[in-house]
Amino acid sequence: MARDTVGRWVTGPPGGPCGTLVPLPTGEQTAERPSTPPEEGTVPGPLRDAARTRRALLDAAARSVVVHGAGVSLDTVAREAGVSKGGLMHHFRSKDELLGALADDLFEQFTRAVEDRVDPDDVAPGRRLRAYVHATFDDLERREEAVELATLLATLGSFPEAARRSQDRYRHWNESLAEDGVDPQRVLLVLRACDGVSIAPLFEGPLGRDELATTRDLLLALTRGEGPPA
Amino acid sequence: MARDTVGRWVTGPPGGPCGTLVPLPTGEQTAERPSTPPEEGTVPGPLRDAARTRRALLDAAARSVVVHGAGVSLDTVAREAGVSKGGLMHHFRSKDELLGALADDLFEQFTRAVEDRVDPDDVAPGRRLRAYVHATFDDLERREEAVELATLLATLGSFPEAARRSQDRYRHWNESLAEDGVDPQRVLLVLRACDGVSIAPLFEGPLGRDELATTRDLLLALTRGEGPPA
Repeated sequence: MARDTVGRWVTGPPGGPCGTLVPLPTGEQTAERPSTPPEEGTVPGPLRDAARTRRALLDAAARSVVVHGAGVSLDTVAREAGVSKGGLMHHFRSKDELLGALADDLFEQFTRAVEDRVDPDDVAPGRRLRAYVHATFDDLERREEAVELATLLATLGSFPEAARRSQDRYRHWNESLAEDGVDPQRVLLVLRACDGVSIAPLFEGPLGRDELATTRDLLLALTRGEGPPA
Repeated sequence: MARDTVGRWVTGPPGGPCGTLVPLPTGEQTAERPSTPPEEGTVPGPLRDAARTRRALLDAAARSVVVHGAGVSLDTVAREAGVSKGGLMHHFRSKDELLGALADDLFEQFTRAVEDRVDPDDVAPGRRLRAYVHATFDDLERREEAVELATLLATLGSFPEAARRSQDRYRHWNESLAEDGVDPQRVLLVLRACDGVSIAPLFEGPLGRDELATTRDLLLALTRGEGPPA
């Protein structure tokens, strides 16, 4: 899942349709910030409510995994979301299904973040890869959140269903970025370094702003066919 | 801990003093392969037995964390090691202490692996960084083990004591490799890419041999002041 989860997720704009997976982890936040699907005006009430509950459950699952780790129970997630266990089971029949959906959700958020960051004035080879670098580093710059995201991604990786879906996503990114006009070895190097810097907060705490800026600029230079300093 | 745990650990030669953390995870393996401290001939019996028990406990902790995740109990580790709970508590007074020691142990093994791979005929700048790349990829080439190692490292990262120690180790590597004669931005890039490729098996399963060889050669070229292909 490196491509889509290690650093490749994004929390979405505050109050936006994605909800905010972090900061952690009180039920109040879910209540204060009911996430609404983007199509709200066009969706009948019952479907809208279902989408809202699903959103609340995914947000609660993300918070709960960060706090409780891989052993988190569906009861805990339901309580965190303010939903009955039966309500949760209506949407997700098992923990595997819930965490698989969470992996998909993080991927979709990150994909939107990359698309948002494609510069319309940038017509040079590597424009999508540059957007990918920017999306990765924008996440990392939210320092405390970056630690929680790294923890969440690492924990999700240990669930077979989430890992399986992430492998699919990984292939997607690989194929998509291979058509971006940059030498494949450069793409590989940039993606692996993005993975490394994304997971680093798990082991090192929040990264310093200077190191982040240096690393981002290096990776952007690589997308332009430039080399690192001699 | 990226520097010392994400991909920066090594299992040691089979039957060697490090013991083998993987393959997973039967008590039999510990019994079949009693790890002995290297100084065996010079150490009095009781101390030798203590070192052996400590070694068995660390190996069992590694296997147990991979199988049971962050919620693993000290009882499970003791049973896996074939040691009483009291015996475990004699060596490690808490789970934090055990997992902190495990993080240290992985770091020490990786450090030895890097030292072993420094080429005595290589006097060019970057010789230690090249040894670091080789140690990282040697781990990754043990394919199934690479998945387990990535899982172990990711899980350890969520324990505060293990994470704290890993931050210390990270600084150590940073300082040590900064004196290797390679541009600091190149060092940063190589280390981050090593991190990324080391954690990737957690999300993608074992990496293909071709991708591993390509990535390793790219990183070695970077240590020599060469650039990636245009």
